Amino acid sequence: MKQANVAVVGVGAVGIEMLRCLKQRKFPVKTLRLFGRSARDITVDGETYKVEVIGKNSFEGIDIALFAGTEGEKGAAVTYAKAAVKAGAVVIDNGADFRMKKTVPLVVPEVNRHTIKDNQGIIANPNCTTIQMLTALNQVHKRFGLKQIILCSYQAVSGAGKQACIGLMDETVALGKQNVGTNYETYAKKLEKTSGAFSAQIAFNVIPQIGGFDDEGFTSEEMKVVHETKKIMGDKKIKVSSTCVRVPVFGAHSEAVYFVTRENVTREQLEKAFKESEGVCYAEKPEDFAKPLDVEGKDATYVSRLRADAQNKNAFWIWVVADNIRKGAALNAVQIAEDVLKRK
Amino acid sequence: MKQANVAVVGVGAVGIEMLRCLKQRKFPVKTLRLFGRSARDITVDGETYKVEVIGKNSFEGIDIALFAGTEGEKGAAVTYAKAAVKAGAVVIDNGADFRMKKTVPLVVPEVNRHTIKDNQGIIANPNCTTIQMLTALNQVHKRFGLKQIILCSYQAVSGAGKQACIGLMDETVALGKQNVGTNYETYAKKLEKTSGAFSAQIAFNVIPQIGGFDDEGFTSEEMKVVHETKKIMGDKKIKVSSTCVRVPVFGAHSEAVYFVTRENVTREQLEKAFKESEGVCYAEKPEDFAKPLDVEGKDATYVSRLRADAQNKNAFWIWVVADNIRKGAALNAVQIAEDVLKRK
Repeated sequence: MKQANVAVVGVGAVGIEMLRCLKQRKFPVKTLRLFGRSARDITVDGETYKVEVIGKNSFEGIDIALFAGTEGEKGAAVTYAKAAVKAGAVVIDNGADFRMKKTVPLVVPEVNRHTIKDNQGIIANPNCTTIQMLTALNQVHKRFGLKQIILCSYQAVSGAGKQACIGLMDETVALGKQNVGTNYETYAKKLEKTSGAFSAQIAFNVIPQIGGFDDEGFTSEEMKVVHETKKIMGDKKIKVSSTCVRVPVFGAHSEAVYFVTRENVTREQLEKAFKESEGVCYAEKPEDFAKPLDVEGKDATYVSRLRADAQNKNAFWIWVVADNIRKGAALNAVQIAEDVLKRK
Repeated sequence: MKQANVAVVGVGAVGIEMLRCLKQRKFPVKTLRLFGRSARDITVDGETYKVEVIGKNSFEGIDIALFAGTEGEKGAAVTYAKAAVKAGAVVIDNGADFRMKKTVPLVVPEVNRHTIKDNQGIIANPNCTTIQMLTALNQVHKRFGLKQIILCSYQAVSGAGKQACIGLMDETVALGKQNVGTNYETYAKKLEKTSGAFSAQIAFNVIPQIGGFDDEGFTSEEMKVVHETKKIMGDKKIKVSSTCVRVPVFGAHSEAVYFVTRENVTREQLEKAFKESEGVCYAEKPEDFAKPLDVEGKDATYVSRLRADAQNKNAFWIWVVADNIRKGAALNAVQIAEDVLKRK
């Protein structure tokens, strides 16, 4: 097997998870370079890595550049992808900036790895919420066609970065201090001062906003699911609508997905499709539903609670849980890198 | 105004909230008697109440009996409602046992208080999840007709009783002790031993199961929403389907509700309907969405984040939050009692 010179740009939660995925999946790394805004050493799972300051000349000799960093409001790829591509690297970008560009394949390998070959240097990693939903629905669409998807998400704070995780932790710890020696009657659930990680306290709360609002009242997260689904599935006719909600969970997003197929389909056919889906772990018994606390750190997309809506033909529910930092970001990018390497 | 002799049966979370609602709403109580499984004194908001042992002879002279207790697996009304009715009381039952009986009105006052007059001694209080959804959708259905409702819930632990709240508190406190002096890298999110309040740890987790599973894989909570909606709306044609999920929030349920109207409707018409809806507090601006931590203890049903699904005609989303112990249980029952008293 060939080897590649790999760069990881950005060493936040996703960048660090990329290092883990490269190692765990024995990605054939010839040399590995890490880039960030400042030079430093970081330690991940007992191994120390050197972080170099990023610059437009950082990519000489790099074959694959995994982008997971930000530069102000945008992804670091906005500033550096062009230079990386010019230097001969294939950029796999976890940011949102290039996803909808016509010349950029938007890839969930299980669903549309065939589009990787069309890249002109940049390949985009989809939004976490979209990735796990489409990994789950992939075979349903291929076998029976998807007419409509309605999604409600229960999203972990890790999707908002490490500081958001620390925010949930800090709020919980602060409430713990406030509540020392108290019983339930006097147990305080609300802080005077929140961590600032979200627009409101996230501990013991849910926040139905992820990203900014558009003129129609949808959030950017909700619209990413709509647009990215059509592009990845290669089918503009699929109707998609969603409500995305932040919940006080550290890692792994959960999704209640309601879908309607174009062709007539039975529950048994769907079960077969889920069992034969790449990257999916399907639970047949209703009580074997997945929960985010168990899925964090896992690679698979967990599908459970398949139910037919008795009042609506070819309409079904599933419950989908995946680690948003792994399958929803780092792992998906490394899977793309594996496919890129195979084609080189 | 007439006065009534009132009995409250069961002094758990809902029974205690009934006492608060009676007092706060200045319900014209002539005499108030509390019944439970054991005789004792309880203190609520600084006031002490005497709890008497319940028996089939407890209801002599009672005009209105609010049932919020359980007797084994069933509601206390299964054992005592008949005796209460025989003694001349009108029973308002928060339990699930009588809700679907033809002779029992199932009432959300804002929606169908006209059915109260048909009671034969027992009136049922609907499930909390159904109550807030229908309070929110009431005027939409009356003005434009509802064709379909798809619901995903984010339900507070208080819906599972006081012990479940203590469970979430205990799990959080135990994690706090486990985490003393640690930073985020070593922060433990998972307990070796959970509180036992739910089938899994609820702190930092979500559990997509409320009630037992039926043969189709739906939970009892999910099917209550389906059946109760049709009965309360008086319209069997409304298609309803739901996924009900427990989240680590103490009080107030949140719901992402997707609905399709029969008649053509504009966003403006819907806004007007929500603004003119009894019991509804409507937020026009997307950023003014309600959160459970702010709604706990409030009487209104909060509707926000109205959005039109651009790809599906007459289809919209709303975000609905209400205190499940107040509007979802105690307050709704006391509102029914007020209507009963007006008719007496």
